[in-house]
Amino acid sequence: MVTVKLYGMPYSTCTKRVYTTAQELDDVKVDIVPVDLASGAHKDPAYIDNYHPFGIIPVLEDEDGTKIYESRAISRYLVAKYGKGSPLLPDSSDIKAYGQFEQAASIEYSSFDPPASSLAFEKVFGPGRGLKTNEELVKKYIDTLNAKVEGYERILSKQKYLAGNTFTLADLFHLPYGAMVNDLDPSILSSKPHVKKWWDDISSRESWKAAQNIQL
Amino acid sequence: MVTVKLYGMPYSTCTKRVYTTAQELDDVKVDIVPVDLASGAHKDPAYIDNYHPFGIIPVLEDEDGTKIYESRAISRYLVAKYGKGSPLLPDSSDIKAYGQFEQAASIEYSSFDPPASSLAFEKVFGPGRGLKTNEELVKKYIDTLNAKVEGYERILSKQKYLAGNTFTLADLFHLPYGAMVNDLDPSILSSKPHVKKWWDDISSRESWKAAQNIQL
Repeated sequence: MVTVKLYGMPYSTCTKRVYTTAQELDDVKVDIVPVDLASGAHKDPAYIDNYHPFGIIPVLEDEDGTKIYESRAISRYLVAKYGKGSPLLPDSSDIKAYGQFEQAASIEYSSFDPPASSLAFEKVFGPGRGLKTNEELVKKYIDTLNAKVEGYERILSKQKYLAGNTFTLADLFHLPYGAMVNDLDPSILSSKPHVKKWWDDISSRESWKAAQNIQL
Repeated sequence: MVTVKLYGMPYSTCTKRVYTTAQELDDVKVDIVPVDLASGAHKDPAYIDNYHPFGIIPVLEDEDGTKIYESRAISRYLVAKYGKGSPLLPDSSDIKAYGQFEQAASIEYSSFDPPASSLAFEKVFGPGRGLKTNEELVKKYIDTLNAKVEGYERILSKQKYLAGNTFTLADLFHLPYGAMVNDLDPSILSSKPHVKKWWDDISSRESWKAAQNIQL
């Protein structure tokens, strides 16, 4: 069992993304090192200099001292290093599976994340910092998500997961913002039968449940 | 030499991204199959059914019939298949290089693409469809890009490219929207010395010049 440090916070969507990935691996324990955004710890010059050039969270510090940021990159790194051969991350030598996986991972980044994270900001994270919700933008993000879900339904009516019939990081990456979207408007992920089935499946994984109860 | 089909358009940023990648490889010729967005060819039910479930461009059709969409996924697929061992895309068995590459590729997707593509939409693609530019949003996207460029400067003051001292797809992915950003406001990518040097370097590659002169 290896123990890695993750500079982050339990409520952070991107911290949860990495934590969920680690839970899918047999031999990785994650110790969260809190970076208190409320007190501006992420803007400390020493943090920016040593951990994250953009002053955000999370950052991984591996046992050998390797540091990586960007939650999806950290997740890929953890699987590549500690989950060799795992179907979570197809190797590029299996060109067909690799192409399908990268396609699915990119769909999450281009089609799902922008409206989902913007909706979460408008309704939850922004108001948490005292900003007023812009209802016109909320409607725009929900409309976009509903339109994108039609593409997801087309994909998921032909295969069980986004990259094929096996659960991969491309599905997992949806969990943190997907859960917020689902809380804010349960109709989005439940209006299409195959999307609903997929969402119910991936959101009931033990790894994700654990990420919602991170203990410092 | 292999010839692949790319359903796209010469003016499309994402089509140019894939075309540039192919130009970096010795043995890949790309034939563009035009999908005329102006006439709504991308919303044709047969196109959505057979090529792209989200009704957008580009889509690759490989010689063996394999189809992949999402420009970054297509680019990775082309390098993995036809540029084996190329430094453009580190293999996951080289864990350090792989982690650095995925981190850099994710920076492009999370920090650069959202404000850059939104700025391009507000100032170029939107008005091209008869929409009025929202100058408040333009200012917001430019402010975001200027803030992100500070993180880029911190990275590029320590290494030549985003994933280390070698040019990779993570740099290349910036080219299409970077060029539009640079046309719209040349100060963004030239205000910081290391960012300017990086941009001048990557934007002068022959592969990118070729992508700006795609012949159908």
